[in-house]
Amino acid sequence: MKIKEMEKELRKKKIDFALFLNIEFDAVEPNIFYFSGYSGSGALVIPKNKKPFLVVHEMEYEKAKKTKIKAFVRKKGKRITETILGILKKKNIRKIAIDKSFVTLNVHKAIKKTFKKAKTTDISGFCLKLREIKTKEEIKRIKEACRISDSILRKFFSNLKKFRTETEAKTFLENETKKNRCSMAFTPIVASGKNSSMPHSDENRKMSKGFCVVDFGITYKGYCSDTTRTFYIGKINKKEKEIYNFLLNVQKEVIKKIKLGVRGGYLHSEALRMLNKYKNNFTHGLGHGIGVKVHELPNLTELSKDKIQKNMVFTVEPGIYFENKFGIRIEDTVLMENKAVRLTKATKDLLIV
Amino acid sequence: MKIKEMEKELRKKKIDFALFLNIEFDAVEPNIFYFSGYSGSGALVIPKNKKPFLVVHEMEYEKAKKTKIKAFVRKKGKRITETILGILKKKNIRKIAIDKSFVTLNVHKAIKKTFKKAKTTDISGFCLKLREIKTKEEIKRIKEACRISDSILRKFFSNLKKFRTETEAKTFLENETKKNRCSMAFTPIVASGKNSSMPHSDENRKMSKGFCVVDFGITYKGYCSDTTRTFYIGKINKKEKEIYNFLLNVQKEVIKKIKLGVRGGYLHSEALRMLNKYKNNFTHGLGHGIGVKVHELPNLTELSKDKIQKNMVFTVEPGIYFENKFGIRIEDTVLMENKAVRLTKATKDLLIV
Repeated sequence: MKIKEMEKELRKKKIDFALFLNIEFDAVEPNIFYFSGYSGSGALVIPKNKKPFLVVHEMEYEKAKKTKIKAFVRKKGKRITETILGILKKKNIRKIAIDKSFVTLNVHKAIKKTFKKAKTTDISGFCLKLREIKTKEEIKRIKEACRISDSILRKFFSNLKKFRTETEAKTFLENETKKNRCSMAFTPIVASGKNSSMPHSDENRKMSKGFCVVDFGITYKGYCSDTTRTFYIGKINKKEKEIYNFLLNVQKEVIKKIKLGVRGGYLHSEALRMLNKYKNNFTHGLGHGIGVKVHELPNLTELSKDKIQKNMVFTVEPGIYFENKFGIRIEDTVLMENKAVRLTKATKDLLIV
Repeated sequence: MKIKEMEKELRKKKIDFALFLNIEFDAVEPNIFYFSGYSGSGALVIPKNKKPFLVVHEMEYEKAKKTKIKAFVRKKGKRITETILGILKKKNIRKIAIDKSFVTLNVHKAIKKTFKKAKTTDISGFCLKLREIKTKEEIKRIKEACRISDSILRKFFSNLKKFRTETEAKTFLENETKKNRCSMAFTPIVASGKNSSMPHSDENRKMSKGFCVVDFGITYKGYCSDTTRTFYIGKINKKEKEIYNFLLNVQKEVIKKIKLGVRGGYLHSEALRMLNKYKNNFTHGLGHGIGVKVHELPNLTELSKDKIQKNMVFTVEPGIYFENKFGIRIEDTVLMENKAVRLTKATKDLLIV
């Protein structure tokens, strides 16, 4: 996506090339995937005036060849940057753009060993900004991810009684995702009873009475969805029901507050205002952008100045947590058009089993 | 593990404290887990003369409190390093040890904003060296991981005929892992037919005739196992059978070559020598250390000078690949005692279905 915009930026800033590097076999460098479609380890080079190319280990070559970008095999026993230098056939390299939020200090040291005279400059902000506004193709993929995850959640809720443990419930979500030829955007959370008070619970207990938070996202062709629903096991009391419906109302109302040009911090503070006496029970941000990564721009957090713009995709996920007691969270993925349009459509009415 | 050794190193090098930072919600910083048992986002601080402590976001506090290390909540709207500075109550900080193979350039910039006068020094090598030699407790966990993964693989092989697609086969491995209350060490590889020629295949095709590579590892209490087996679907010809048995013999013989004090590079070159005319069909390293991460020290690769020592745990995994045709890989996890002892014991006899 948007490789032309990147090349333009490089020319404008007089940067010889952008270098995206991933040395971990099991990590994805989001920019490599975003610009090239390749998701393994290796390097993507985008020169300002030449065609972009990939450099990968011999054993990843077959995989890399399947993308539209030309792939080269890294020379054995040499740094990957030396292979890149050889392909570029250019001596006078002055300025290299890298993602300083991804490149570690030691990888940077290795880059400097090959490109001794070059300065490195941080392109992470520009990449995040490029990725923040989605293209038509990206929106199509995210919509499809949301549609599939909705259908999985519906099936999940009609099977609720079968799950004896939290792990069984998570396994169901994972298996259905695979049946739909999608991957997990993150390890799903199923947190019942007391566990629901931990926003990122990774326990495995028996499905316990009380609220149960289900936070679930998939990727379709590399693009993520993210939804949270909270249901109830057992006999609910009036107070609990009130709190659920109170939070649901806050979530719906805050979505209505989303207008073009408002800032992420403003929306977070609006949520706090509406949460009223429960505002101290809300322990995380209101939402986050979503795309090739589950967490991208814009931030909908306390201090965020990110402005809401057309074709952004982000989550809205207020929660109320009582330590060691219970927690509730309701989350949708929305697309910003002239107003915020919900892409995740599984019902938010309180389900009691 | 080995927190005393770390404190000793800090005193020796006159380092005020070691700082391990993880800002990603879905990543694990291996040193934080190794020293504290905590696996979420946040920071672990190990001062040279005081008790170590964790600093985490409010929403991770309940989780962090479950470890033996004291946990603090990060102050809202401030950098995590500022909360650390407040807890340390120390002004004259001169030298901070960080893992420069994990810390990104931008995180480093943030560290320097708080600890203006302090120098940062790289502790990654020392951490890798500490983690390279396993404690009794670590060996116990890895053995258990291997034992469980063996039992899963046996069950897998007796169910082979049920799997219509590679994804169904991978799902079986994942579900069995969860049933055993373990996690995946990495996404399993099931690569049949032509896919088997890609060492890191992530495709999903119908289970196809020919060799099928299964690379599978789990974690038990945070510690990994790693095994690869190759079986055959359909009618095998003489040549293919010969190549399989040839590779199996190389794998067994190279394990016998492992002695205390030999270097990783030597073992890799021995494998190449034994692979003989197939040496160019072997496209990756012979093996890698394994522990809290799937890839640790020692390296058993071409240029590795890592010396094999007692209580190291690592893999031995030669392979032969023919591009676009087929591939075979056989891998065991071994523990170094006076000789290399296999911890993964699923049969290596060629299974034909």
